[in-house]
Amino acid sequence: MDSDGRRILGVVLFDGFELLDVFGPVELFARLTELFEVHFIGPDERPVRSAQGKKVVTDHPYADAPPADISLVPGGTGTRALAGDAAFGTWLRGWAGSSEIAASVCTGAGLLAAAGLLDGYRATSNKRAFAWVMEQGPNVTWVRKARWVHDRDRWTSGGVAAGMDMSLALIAHLHGEELATRLADAVEYDWHRDSEWDPFAVKHGLVVE
Amino acid sequence: MDSDGRRILGVVLFDGFELLDVFGPVELFARLTELFEVHFIGPDERPVRSAQGKKVVTDHPYADAPPADISLVPGGTGTRALAGDAAFGTWLRGWAGSSEIAASVCTGAGLLAAAGLLDGYRATSNKRAFAWVMEQGPNVTWVRKARWVHDRDRWTSGGVAAGMDMSLALIAHLHGEELATRLADAVEYDWHRDSEWDPFAVKHGLVVE
Repeated sequence: MDSDGRRILGVVLFDGFELLDVFGPVELFARLTELFEVHFIGPDERPVRSAQGKKVVTDHPYADAPPADISLVPGGTGTRALAGDAAFGTWLRGWAGSSEIAASVCTGAGLLAAAGLLDGYRATSNKRAFAWVMEQGPNVTWVRKARWVHDRDRWTSGGVAAGMDMSLALIAHLHGEELATRLADAVEYDWHRDSEWDPFAVKHGLVVE
Repeated sequence: MDSDGRRILGVVLFDGFELLDVFGPVELFARLTELFEVHFIGPDERPVRSAQGKKVVTDHPYADAPPADISLVPGGTGTRALAGDAAFGTWLRGWAGSSEIAASVCTGAGLLAAAGLLDGYRATSNKRAFAWVMEQGPNVTWVRKARWVHDRDRWTSGGVAAGMDMSLALIAHLHGEELATRLADAVEYDWHRDSEWDPFAVKHGLVVE
């Protein structure tokens, strides 16, 4: 926590991160200025290029990342190269592994899994890239049909937009359902409160209806 | 359009823009790389600070903005100061006024209205800041209960997350419902296809249930 007792949400950025995986959750957490402080962590001091090409300014390089209460790993095309990067995996295991809660959106679960951070946990991920994500974590219990999965100190969501539902559920878990509802209403977001609501698992052929 | 026949989506950034107003729509348009090219337009060459504090790198300063096929104006706390900025209004009237489609998310409608770009049109905006937005456009027919409003070459959405539903509707309008559906499924987004779906107008007291 910072000196005002707010939780630090550290968001890992990397070349080819998916924009909404980051900015859906950040829109929600960053509005609660008295409860959370959002830090962007990037490979170095330079702005980080998203999968969509747009660049975002970071707050700290990986090597100098402050301890996070909640670590959040987004997905995106950049995860494919990064999952095999041993130095990144070692850093992520240390940094995210020491946070109170380690969370991922979309194929970010593949990075948590490759770093061993989901071993022995239940977890989910993007429904179109599920096969690749499962390969990253043979010791993970992968849940094919789930909007998000909360297992002890790990929170993992489905693809892209699912990160917003998970974020609201996590905020409700920490600070109550009423606050999360007010937040969803303020940003006019139709929050799916049921973690098992997942039409996309069927649409993308992971489960039979 | 650019030399490959893609529409240019020009997104106006300003100090205090709302993150999801920008990155919800951009997530969707920027995935259709064969149809759209997304440009960020900022006050000058420097990264632009969002309402949530995070900074984004721009592609062009206002003074040197390329003509856009679709101009998109987000909302955010920064709209309040900007609506009274005559130089910005003159620039926006010229630049967005000459695009094929001028669109806004959230209180971005207040900026379009202040620039006279919604005069004689039906339009909507954020449901919590509706009174302020209406003041910016006395000659606009404001629609209190609407997820988004499409009136000829103007598209305006409700608050924050509503921009994603409007973007999908606009993509469907230009390129067909099937493509928009595939896009929504790919990002695991529960698209609201009905422009009159708007529980937030009731929640924020704009209409009686």
